[in-house]
Formats: sequence, C-alpha cells, structure tokens
Amino acid sequence: MPREITAFSNPLIKRVRNLRDKKHRREEGLFLAEGLRILTEAREAGRLPDYLFFAKDMAGHPLVRALVAATEGAGGEAIETNADILSKLSGKDNPGAVVGVYPEFALTLDQLDRATAPIWLVAERLRDPGNLGTILRTGDAVGAGGLILLDDCVDPFSVEAVRASMGALFTVPVARASWAEFVAWLRSGPGQLVGLSLDTDQDYKAGHYRAPTFLLTGNEAQGMPDFMAAECDLLVKIPMLGKADSLNAAVATAVMAYEVLSRTRG
Amino acid sequence: MPREITAFSNPLIKRVRNLRDKKHRREEGLFLAEGLRILTEAREAGRLPDYLFFAKDMAGHPLVRALVAATEGAGGEAIETNADILSKLSGKDNPGAVVGVYPEFALTLDQLDRATAPIWLVAERLRDPGNLGTILRTGDAVGAGGLILLDDCVDPFSVEAVRASMGALFTVPVARASWAEFVAWLRSGPGQLVGLSLDTDQDYKAGHYRAPTFLLTGNEAQGMPDFMAAECDLLVKIPMLGKADSLNAAVATAVMAYEVLSRTRG
Repeated sequence: MPREITAFSNPLIKRVRNLRDKKHRREEGLFLAEGLRILTEAREAGRLPDYLFFAKDMAGHPLVRALVAATEGAGGEAIETNADILSKLSGKDNPGAVVGVYPEFALTLDQLDRATAPIWLVAERLRDPGNLGTILRTGDAVGAGGLILLDDCVDPFSVEAVRASMGALFTVPVARASWAEFVAWLRSGPGQLVGLSLDTDQDYKAGHYRAPTFLLTGNEAQGMPDFMAAECDLLVKIPMLGKADSLNAAVATAVMAYEVLSRTRG
Repeated sequence: MPREITAFSNPLIKRVRNLRDKKHRREEGLFLAEGLRILTEAREAGRLPDYLFFAKDMAGHPLVRALVAATEGAGGEAIETNADILSKLSGKDNPGAVVGVYPEFALTLDQLDRATAPIWLVAERLRDPGNLGTILRTGDAVGAGGLILLDDCVDPFSVEAVRASMGALFTVPVARASWAEFVAWLRSGPGQLVGLSLDTDQDYKAGHYRAPTFLLTGNEAQGMPDFMAAECDLLVKIPMLGKADSLNAAVATAVMAYEVLSRTRG
C-alpha cells in the first residue's frame, strides 16, 4: 500500500531532488527517470525503481498501476504524491505522471559480448547529455550491442541524457572505459573500428564494413584526436555540401549506423 | 570606433537580454546569436548584426576584428564589453567572445525557388528548438534548398535553435507557412512529398525519390496527422530493430535526407 508524501520538506524528496546533481548520483549510486513512457520501457526491460513517485490523480491509469505493482513486487517503494512535488523532482513545469529512482548500472568492457550484435557504438569525450541520450536511442533502433563511453564523457545517468534516450538507457547496454582499456579489449577479438573523420577521401557509402563494426564518434567540437584516428581500421567521411564542416555528433552517428546496418543486413 | 558598455543597468543591455524571450523578439524583430564560429558563418553568408558585443580582451583576435569592421561598415554598432555582460546576454556561464543582435529574416513560400535544390526539408509542429537547429545544420550539410516550418513550430530564432544550428540558420533559407498554404504552393509546381511514417511497409532504402524531394518530418511526440500522410506522394519507414518505435526527429530527418542525397547524386 503506497504511502503519501506531499511536503517539500520531506527528507526523501530532498534526497531525490539532489540526484539531479552528478555529485549526489555518484554518492548514492542512484539516478532519476521520468514519464510513463520511459518508466514503462524500463519495466519491460526488467528495470524497476527503488522509489516510484506517482501523481495521486493518475493512480488509476493502467500503466501507473502496472508500475506500482511491479515496483512493490520487486521490493521497491511506491509513493503517492502531487504535481508540485513531481515538478520539483523532475525540474519541469509540466512533469509526467511518474518519477522513478533507479540504481545505476553501467558495465565494464568484460561484461560485453561482441558476438551478440553486428554494430556497436563508441563515443569519446562526448560533452552534451542530449547527444548521449539521442545516440542511445539510435543504438536501440539499429540493434546496437551497446554504447561504449571512452574517457571523460558526460554522465549517461544525467536527467537530460535519460530524457533524450527516451528509455533506451534501459535497453541498450552502456559501458565505460579508458581509450587504452578499449583498444586492448577491442584487439583481443574480432572487430572493425570505424572512425568518422574530415581528413579522408573515403566516402561512408563506399566503405567496406565487417561485423562486428565499432563506430567511433569523436568529441563534438574537436572530433577525435589523431592517435585515435590512427588506430581505426577504416576512416570514412559523410559528404558535406554546405558551408559548415560537420554534423551534429548524434546525427553523424545515426547516418553512419544506418549505413552500416543496411550493409550488414545485405 | 566602438563604444564601451560595462554596466548591467545600461538600457541596451536590458533590451538585448530581453531578446531571449519570444515576446520581445516578435516586438523588436530581432534575435540573438553568439560565438565566434556562428557569427563568422553569418558574416560569410552576408548577415551582419545591428549590434555586435565583443569581449574587450578579445578585441585583437582576427575574427573579432573582421566582425567589428564588417558590422561598422554595414552601419551596425560594435560595442566593447566584458565577460560578465556577455554571460548575461548569452545566458551561459562561459560565454563566447561575441554576441550579435540580428534582424529576423524568415521567408514566405513565394520567396523560395524549388529549382535551386534537389532536397527540401519540411517540419510540422516541431517542438524542440534543439531539434530545429540540428535539422537546419543537417539541411546545410545535404545542400537542402531550405527548411519550411508548418503550422505551430518552435521559433527558429530562439537562442537554443540558433545555437544548435551552428550557424546554419544564416545559410539555410527558412520559410513559415500553414499546411494549407504549403500544399497549394507545393502542387503549383514539380515536387515529391515524402513522409516518414510508422504505418507503411515501404523501407526508406527502397523508396523511389524524385527531385525536388520535400521531406516531411512530423511532431516529435505524435508524428504527422493522417491527413498529412494522405497528401504525401510516398510514405517510407526507417527500420527500428529495438524496443522503441521512433527515432529522434532530427536524427530521422538526417537519415532520410542522406539517403535521398545519395540517390539524387546517383
């Protein structure tokens, strides 16, 4: 039976609200997700929150009821609250019906099995949480085996990244590693490292891709450094017909990933 | 010779700061852009600001000097200021070296010449300014003739949209129209209307595209309504192999636009 919290001063509300800051997420090992669509995606992927906050006036909604039942069945706590509290927790004026508090679950490279998918996404020093979430969403769509975050990437458990992923954070495995760890792991088995670059004449449409293909996307402002490009088995470029010299990082990753997908599916 | 402003209370600073709100942009017919890269892109496209604010300690930078000279040469005013003021104007903790105030310049359909490009982008009820800016950036990259915004789209002159466009707002023509106006204009000449849809078996890779192709992207949450889909000459879908049923709107637009580009280039 859910308890009810309606006071902003409640210690749990303060604690959950703090999870919007990376420092508190690290200390607690917890993160926030919000909205019926994303939390339902999580539930269907077998991820249930430690705490589920839901709007009292939405308690009868079938998806809310399913979330409450699953959360309580898994030992979590469902908490009835109101739109003001949900707005405070989510940081949005128009909050969704639900906010969930989940344990973080990033993997290490040795927990990935490269044989499970023909495409893997790799990003280095990604700075924008919206780009990270969007890349995860694309990763889900192309059936990527996972997203590997190299070196100092933005936090995949930030509110903005979770939101942009539209639930893909719960369905696409995310691993973190240094560049050196990644190269050692990559070269311990089959895998083609493909980098997007401006310094090549090889059009991405004419590239030869071999599964499992690891698609490396560089930092938004600088692209990848030369020593990473030198490690790539193939560098390709996407044609740029206009005034600018680059695409948004999430867009470039998606254009590449769909090209590789269409080739590996034949 | 630039004047110097360092007081937050200066009326021009207040007025420019207000341009972050849509209401003030409409009243003034002006908008904000920031950063050396974007303002230089604008300058190279022949767009100069009415007011150019630049950081005093960056006054010697060649690109700043070029912007100051061009702005003054075109009858605009260059204003020396400091990082605090620039931060206030741009809303960022780490502002760029320059902020420009530009006249708005959206077009109407009769100002577009469809013969100038094989690809045109069309968006209806786009809600996210980041998506709009990213679609403009992609439009520049694929050589699109322009972006046509239908019905109630987010403002292309918002700070977030300009930022995400990385300058493409200045190089890609933007027009606004109602759906009815658009259909009347479209059918008055050659043009294939291609819509992205979940309710079709036609894979985007197998579609037959005929220039000029008008790529229609629907609202982020709802996609396009049935009456718009019914007007399309071709509906195609991008394969979704994962749990989710849709891509980010800017990503889907880019995957489609690059497919059409590769076909129309042969």
